[in-house]
Amino acid sequence: MYTARRRVEFHQTDAAGLMHFSAFFTMMEEAEHEFLRHLGLSVLARDEQGKLSWPRVAAQCEFSGPLRFEEEVAIAVAVSRLGETSVTYGFTVRRAAAGAGDKNAVVARGSITAVCCRFRPDGTPVASPIPEMIRQKLAAHVAS
Amino acid sequence: MYTARRRVEFHQTDAAGLMHFSAFFTMMEEAEHEFLRHLGLSVLARDEQGKLSWPRVAAQCEFSGPLRFEEEVAIAVAVSRLGETSVTYGFTVRRAAAGAGDKNAVVARGSITAVCCRFRPDGTPVASPIPEMIRQKLAAHVAS
Amino acid sequence: MYTARRRVEFHQTDAAGLMHFSAFFTMMEEAEHEFLRHLGLSVLARDEQGKLSWPRVAAQCEFSGPLRFEEEVAIAVAVSRLGETSVTYGFTVRRAAAGAGDKNAVVARGSITAVCCRFRPDGTPVASPIPEMIRQKLAAHVAS
Amino acid sequence: MYTARRRVEFHQTDAAGLMHFSAFFTMMEEAEHEFLRHLGLSVLARDEQGKLSWPRVAAQCEFSGPLRFEEEVAIAVAVSRLGETSVTYGFTVRRAAAGAGDKNAVVARGSITAVCCRFRPDGTPVASPIPEMIRQKLAAHVAS
Repeated sequence: MYTARRRVEFHQTDAAGLMHFSAFFTMMEEAEHEFLRHLGLSVLARDEQGKLSWPRVAAQCEFSGPLRFEEEVAIAVAVSRLGETSVTYGFTVRRAAAGAGDKNAVVARGSITAVCCRFRPDGTPVASPIPEMIRQKLAAHVAS
Repeated sequence: MYTARRRVEFHQTDAAGLMHFSAFFTMMEEAEHEFLRHLGLSVLARDEQGKLSWPRVAAQCEFSGPLRFEEEVAIAVAVSRLGETSVTYGFTVRRAAAGAGDKNAVVARGSITAVCCRFRPDGTPVASPIPEMIRQKLAAHVAS
Repeated sequence: MYTARRRVEFHQTDAAGLMHFSAFFTMMEEAEHEFLRHLGLSVLARDEQGKLSWPRVAAQCEFSGPLRFEEEVAIAVAVSRLGETSVTYGFTVRRAAAGAGDKNAVVARGSITAVCCRFRPDGTPVASPIPEMIRQKLAAHVAS
Repeated sequence: MYTARRRVEFHQTDAAGLMHFSAFFTMMEEAEHEFLRHLGLSVLARDEQGKLSWPRVAAQCEFSGPLRFEEEVAIAVAVSRLGETSVTYGFTVRRAAAGAGDKNAVVARGSITAVCCRFRPDGTPVASPIPEMIRQKLAAHVAS
């Protein structure tokens, strides 16, 4: 499992005094992209067949605890499903300061499903089989 | 069904040339808040028992088509479930320019579940029964 | 003077209870783009010479009053300087609910300078003279 | 000079393929807050006289080069002016990968002016002298 670390930034908080829920989604995506870089990949790439990108087809998150300004979090990423043209990443967001047995440590669990796309000349994304080199790297991180 | 309208702003797009997926969540929340104002309510309120807010416990969205800069969308909101302390809103995002029978009109379907919370003196949110006046207004918009 | 209207959204507020300062910049840019659409233009365009875009080279804002969640604002836009390759827009942000003589009505004054750019094959933006049709439309709105 | 490091995130890019200009402002603010933590301070604090916060009264930035997805930057922060109730931070954003003599290394220079505020019971921020302990720490970092 790859783990990214972030701190809650002031612009991510809202007038209720907590981190805004939409920031969990950008944090999870940042962790996904950091994981891909760790594998030597990028979410925006180009190969001999042209531009490759990964539009999202689904995203979901359950929030179990509030985060406040300046709190540090650890975002664990795993590949939870690897399909012909799509991949689903699973995320667990924990307070970095929490002890090992702290049942309040997990503040969110979520997932993002992305589809490997190439682009028509007019820019329309079209689902395309995940290239073999990428598939092998992702397959090595499928959660068991 | 209440319907909010928005246009894709430049800062909501990303380097793949499409609206970033996190912007669907802020758009859905904007539609929720507009719907609450339409009912004479607000997501940040104060009554005789103190401050009332609605932290999110879950959010999910399925994306079925890309949105580009300057496209106009219509975001329909309905109450899909009304519990003792929580409410789930369902959203359908359509291209505003699409014709009535256009099967590509829907670009996203999602939901957000929020819990009615009051706050401890230290700021910790605590789930609390939805006040009767608010419950009645929301109940009138439960999707059938 | 073209005037755009917006309402402070919850995700634009921060833990100090006010609209975050960065949201003034996205609001001003949204007003600029709405003004361009009003002129029949777009900040992302394509003509017979290829793609045309307007990267920002400077932005500044002075904030004279706080904005809170759900407040309505009116954002006035004018062209304050029109150069060979660049244009500077001036913005005044007012509380929409303020009376005509209310000296607290203005909450921010700012400007954004954008440069007309075409792109090298590798994607590098290069400053380019503003096309005559666009220049004429902008020139008609230079603040006197 | 304190230096913070960031990487351009995908959600910070826009449809022109570059980091959106508003992200320079959030990056500069993140560097300011990281600098304050380095001094043992926080932009949201509480002392024996109550809550203390630092609303922004001015922000400006000049952009001299584009940033793209996944580029790493170094954001240098200094105190450029320290007043009775306000502080101005100056920022220089450089490509982290640039060589020492690379004249294209600097991509932005900006500043943010914040006012030390306490709050009236109704939440209105009121400018207040910077507490002595904070003043001394900031004074030690005034750019010469």
